[in-house]
Amino acid sequence: MPDAIEVRKVPIHSVADASELAKLIDDGVLHADRVIAIIGKTEGNGGVNDFTRGYFTQSLMALLSRWLGESADKLAARIPCVLSGGTEGVLSPHYVVFARSKVSAPSPGSSLAIGTAMSAPLPAEHVGRAAHIQSVADAVKSAIAQARIENPRDIHFVQVKCPCITSARAETALAQGKSVVTSDPNRSMALARAAGAFGVALALGEISEQRMDETALLRDFSVKSDRASISSGVEVECNEVIVLGNSRHWSGELRIAHRPMADALDIGGVVQALRDLGIEAAPQITAQDRSRVRAVFVKCEPDRRGRIAGHRHTMLDDTDINAQRHIRGALGGLVASVMGDGRIFVSGGAEHQGPDGGGLIAVIASQQAGDA
Amino acid sequence: MPDAIEVRKVPIHSVADASELAKLIDDGVLHADRVIAIIGKTEGNGGVNDFTRGYFTQSLMALLSRWLGESADKLAARIPCVLSGGTEGVLSPHYVVFARSKVSAPSPGSSLAIGTAMSAPLPAEHVGRAAHIQSVADAVKSAIAQARIENPRDIHFVQVKCPCITSARAETALAQGKSVVTSDPNRSMALARAAGAFGVALALGEISEQRMDETALLRDFSVKSDRASISSGVEVECNEVIVLGNSRHWSGELRIAHRPMADALDIGGVVQALRDLGIEAAPQITAQDRSRVRAVFVKCEPDRRGRIAGHRHTMLDDTDINAQRHIRGALGGLVASVMGDGRIFVSGGAEHQGPDGGGLIAVIASQQAGDA
Amino acid sequence: MPDAIEVRKVPIHSVADASELAKLIDDGVLHADRVIAIIGKTEGNGGVNDFTRGYFTQSLMALLSRWLGESADKLAARIPCVLSGGTEGVLSPHYVVFARSKVSAPSPGSSLAIGTAMSAPLPAEHVGRAAHIQSVADAVKSAIAQARIENPRDIHFVQVKCPCITSARAETALAQGKSVVTSDPNRSMALARAAGAFGVALALGEISEQRMDETALLRDFSVKSDRASISSGVEVECNEVIVLGNSRHWSGELRIAHRPMADALDIGGVVQALRDLGIEAAPQITAQDRSRVRAVFVKCEPDRRGRIAGHRHTMLDDTDINAQRHIRGALGGLVASVMGDGRIFVSGGAEHQGPDGGGLIAVIASQQAGDA
Amino acid sequence: MPDAIEVRKVPIHSVADASELAKLIDDGVLHADRVIAIIGKTEGNGGVNDFTRGYFTQSLMALLSRWLGESADKLAARIPCVLSGGTEGVLSPHYVVFARSKVSAPSPGSSLAIGTAMSAPLPAEHVGRAAHIQSVADAVKSAIAQARIENPRDIHFVQVKCPCITSARAETALAQGKSVVTSDPNRSMALARAAGAFGVALALGEISEQRMDETALLRDFSVKSDRASISSGVEVECNEVIVLGNSRHWSGELRIAHRPMADALDIGGVVQALRDLGIEAAPQITAQDRSRVRAVFVKCEPDRRGRIAGHRHTMLDDTDINAQRHIRGALGGLVASVMGDGRIFVSGGAEHQGPDGGGLIAVIASQQAGDA
Repeated sequence: MPDAIEVRKVPIHSVADASELAKLIDDGVLHADRVIAIIGKTEGNGGVNDFTRGYFTQSLMALLSRWLGESADKLAARIPCVLSGGTEGVLSPHYVVFARSKVSAPSPGSSLAIGTAMSAPLPAEHVGRAAHIQSVADAVKSAIAQARIENPRDIHFVQVKCPCITSARAETALAQGKSVVTSDPNRSMALARAAGAFGVALALGEISEQRMDETALLRDFSVKSDRASISSGVEVECNEVIVLGNSRHWSGELRIAHRPMADALDIGGVVQALRDLGIEAAPQITAQDRSRVRAVFVKCEPDRRGRIAGHRHTMLDDTDINAQRHIRGALGGLVASVMGDGRIFVSGGAEHQGPDGGGLIAVIASQQAGDA
Repeated sequence: MPDAIEVRKVPIHSVADASELAKLIDDGVLHADRVIAIIGKTEGNGGVNDFTRGYFTQSLMALLSRWLGESADKLAARIPCVLSGGTEGVLSPHYVVFARSKVSAPSPGSSLAIGTAMSAPLPAEHVGRAAHIQSVADAVKSAIAQARIENPRDIHFVQVKCPCITSARAETALAQGKSVVTSDPNRSMALARAAGAFGVALALGEISEQRMDETALLRDFSVKSDRASISSGVEVECNEVIVLGNSRHWSGELRIAHRPMADALDIGGVVQALRDLGIEAAPQITAQDRSRVRAVFVKCEPDRRGRIAGHRHTMLDDTDINAQRHIRGALGGLVASVMGDGRIFVSGGAEHQGPDGGGLIAVIASQQAGDA
Repeated sequence: MPDAIEVRKVPIHSVADASELAKLIDDGVLHADRVIAIIGKTEGNGGVNDFTRGYFTQSLMALLSRWLGESADKLAARIPCVLSGGTEGVLSPHYVVFARSKVSAPSPGSSLAIGTAMSAPLPAEHVGRAAHIQSVADAVKSAIAQARIENPRDIHFVQVKCPCITSARAETALAQGKSVVTSDPNRSMALARAAGAFGVALALGEISEQRMDETALLRDFSVKSDRASISSGVEVECNEVIVLGNSRHWSGELRIAHRPMADALDIGGVVQALRDLGIEAAPQITAQDRSRVRAVFVKCEPDRRGRIAGHRHTMLDDTDINAQRHIRGALGGLVASVMGDGRIFVSGGAEHQGPDGGGLIAVIASQQAGDA
Repeated sequence: MPDAIEVRKVPIHSVADASELAKLIDDGVLHADRVIAIIGKTEGNGGVNDFTRGYFTQSLMALLSRWLGESADKLAARIPCVLSGGTEGVLSPHYVVFARSKVSAPSPGSSLAIGTAMSAPLPAEHVGRAAHIQSVADAVKSAIAQARIENPRDIHFVQVKCPCITSARAETALAQGKSVVTSDPNRSMALARAAGAFGVALALGEISEQRMDETALLRDFSVKSDRASISSGVEVECNEVIVLGNSRHWSGELRIAHRPMADALDIGGVVQALRDLGIEAAPQITAQDRSRVRAVFVKCEPDRRGRIAGHRHTMLDDTDINAQRHIRGALGGLVASVMGDGRIFVSGGAEHQGPDGGGLIAVIASQQAGDA
């Protein structure tokens, strides 16, 4: 029977609760050994001291471990689990499970394709530098091969989770006589995201090897990928990669589309990505179409020049609330209102991901209504 | 010549900067003695220790005082200046100036009408209680009369700024043997907003005197006004009221419309309010229509039952970021994306203002394009 | 051989890390079945959405479960694990392990004594009400009996962890037709702490049954216990109690002392508690004495009247930082500077615990220098 | 009659309230034309968007302007007004007024001496660079000359307020083709403080011109001044300098002392600075000695290596609360408990000011008890 991918949007009822997935497994709806990857939003602050990602991963891996008889550590090392902290505003904690499936007959045209990869562990002294870029690029190429996507244009979303430099890791590296690119944890997260975006752009051929200069990180924003979504966090030590696209080697009702977002107000990009999948927002999508939408991924960031559509914003000068929390809340409000659903993956820190000051959106939807 | 109202949206370049209004006055575009009222958003946290409202008011009144030869205190006592702190996410600090004007000929039909009022100072022991409700209701009725709006259905937006109870005011009242309804400053702000909403509902005949029980404040959310927008802050001591509607006693190109918002995702309410004024959002309004929009006012709140459209939100359990900051950021993202402009007045704390868990939107627009 | 208690102060190297305890067990220094109770500080925000407590508990119980062959749930139900979130300022994440021990010969006089108890699960509708007070009082009495402390004056510290009301729990209770004392999560934590303090005061005979009026909670601050330390959090469903004192039924080098703190500046209380144990601070204790100190517990709170020693403080009016975070940071600075060690248990929310506006300190120290 | 300096500690009753100084002037106690300088703490967040400093300065200069008939702008340009935002924990908003005075007879020995200076405005492209260091050094030398302090060892405290780079200023500089050292506002504040400290160290001869390499800023922490206290904020455009020491050219009962603080727990440094002035803390100073203390200035910072006295702290990894807010709260708790008074100037950001990871304290006290 032809290969297909099953995509399920699962709510998190409390911080590290995996009960809804447990139920799906218990009920025989989804066997644990079919799980390929997970992308989700947890309710922490999305910053250096966001522990909800690690906590939820611990719950999830313990659950899968019980079913698969494999240690949680081994599972974590082969199943990418990319969590972004921060469900500001109307966003709702949830995760999207990607699982292997079979369909009765091959689908005409192409269907949703997936590939994953894990790089080797990245030492603190490599984070945010050339070695980091290359490590991501290699892992992305490996995931593309696994996804059996031949034309890079059919790749619509590449999610990468990169390690960052905590105070403790910086101390360790310095004690070993290594240098780190920064000892400011928040800045290290930004540099790690930038390096990841460069790696994706390189792997997708969006830019050439010549431009892959590490000094361009967080400096030359014309270097970018419209399909890269990079997170960074204290809980990973290697680069975890998930590649999503459409391919004729896969079957099933699901397809993915993406659009860049020109700025943080670009509701047009959201509506167009839906339209690419045959869904109209007028202005909110219907309940029936809502049941077709299996996942929404958004990357965004506070315009570093301090203006959006010509008007001053105050996100970058706020010492009380991290700017990434601000922008996630704003984009969450925008996209969730179009979808009629707060279960949107909105991740801040879109340096070199989509247009400068904007970002991107990717949507996975079925050709037919179902249980989203 | 017939009376009209001029409405100008003015940017704040830095926290307490009134330079753009100064320029309008200097250039003879807007004489200081024509200013009736001001509604704006400043860049503080919108909480008890948001000092940006008081700081900007000080700048503004100093400016007008220089032109009018009247003390800043006297000006503040007669010109309502309702500022809401918090430009989370894509929101942009700005203020809307309402000024008396004349037009060459009477307009057919009705045009934007305004009336203002100030109550007597409200002692801390009255805040959030029956005496507070009555004080607001009386002031709103007085403002309606001044606005010459005959049918309450032609009233579209009533903005009230109420005093709250700071720790210091609570101490003073208690030292005098008075009781206060709460000594928690954040809770006092919520109760003050609730009392203000009850006062507006009473004045507009939305509900009857019999239901005006102070024990229903923050308890019975079926008591509400779809046109009330209440702020509360440390910097006022009386209730300041601005009534906006349409009336045949006024002329000019401007009109106002409003719609309730069913929940924090109700983009339909936003689109309908614009449509009431002949403006289409598809999905963002055009640059030409943008120049017609003179002011956008939004009230909203984090659903107190912890769910939006059936999905859990985390705003109420967040000890790091006040829930009102969260919801302003989300609605700011939604409404600004439709408008293509972050200069939106979004105010949290919509208790009894619009549907429970939702809020309302009001828009002022010209029949013709102009300089917004 | 006579019974004794071993007390160990263990660092947390990262959020949910129990590796140092694992090492003690692995090395045979401390057998897992000797663990009686744990009191610690984790690095969350100490508020409703502090997930570090639950996360660390999960790690700890998993560790003990591996050694004891008992499920983590069962362990959590019999070993009190009282964690307070928030290591503001100079505070350092750590936990204190209390373990059963034996000494070769009975000690003259009295030595550190411990007793623990768990109440039945407390439903949300009981939190912060009379039933809550009684539930705590009963559990404390049971723990005193277990500790074999005959004279209530020999009890020096009673730690209780109480459940609170999250938005979700409030929803559930309301859906069942029950009422909750408040649906504001932060307020529910305060009421739960108050009820816990009343329960301790009742059990210790500090006040009479007649004064145990639930309407006095957070109102009549003359009702108090100088030895109660109450935490509240989302991660517990019953009241967990640990009683500490000195008793002739126990042996060993350890003793405990406590002192009330009159206000948040009362360094005198700190110095006196140390002096009760034969330790001088001049102004910081010596390295040798530091090795005698096994645990320091502090309760404190931001004076609700807005003044400390006659001068205004701003903690209660701060919408950006929760007042409990402020006061923990201040007391942490004070006490850690005297001790020369940031591993202090400082817990906010001292309503009815120690003098109004102040709090209390308890110290456990050995008669001889050792490895603290 | 011999010159002396009068030093008054004045409470701020609400954010921008200068009423207590107004009363002193009204009552003839302190004539406005005697005011030399002001150092104070306001209740903002101490970060980029702390507007309380500018707001209070506006109030203060308006007050002095009314008495002196000089414009507020001119006054601000000649009277240094150094405000540090952030009254975390037990700290109390207040300011210290330095005023010219005369005494009836010359004092034996030396008395408190003061000198002030203002540099030329510093463009954004100079902030945090060599030109910034030189600008501060020149201004400090000018202030020392004015203070008539001959031996640099008699200088005990040099307060400097430096401009920083906001998003808006960075935009302006970039638009003019200039480069800025960083476009991250928080980082620019740190670099500005570092440059200020280098400037003071240079002027005081603590280090030589050769070591004044701008690349050492925030890198080589062996370059330091034990008497520099540097603030940075959006509200100043030039470097404002106040030099304090003891000199035989001045008379009166006041003297100043200072001590470095080795780390954030160094209560010994506090006690020693008091002892230098003949005041004993045992452990808190007496009410009589408290009336002698006219001002307490503390600089401190969160150890950038993540440890204090060997134990991990979490300030640098906290995305919710800025690390400077944490450390001010901790040191405020320490020092205020010794003084029995929360009116302490505690300023974070002690890069190159005092020992690495520590800071410094300076105290001004009278030889006799009085009204502090």
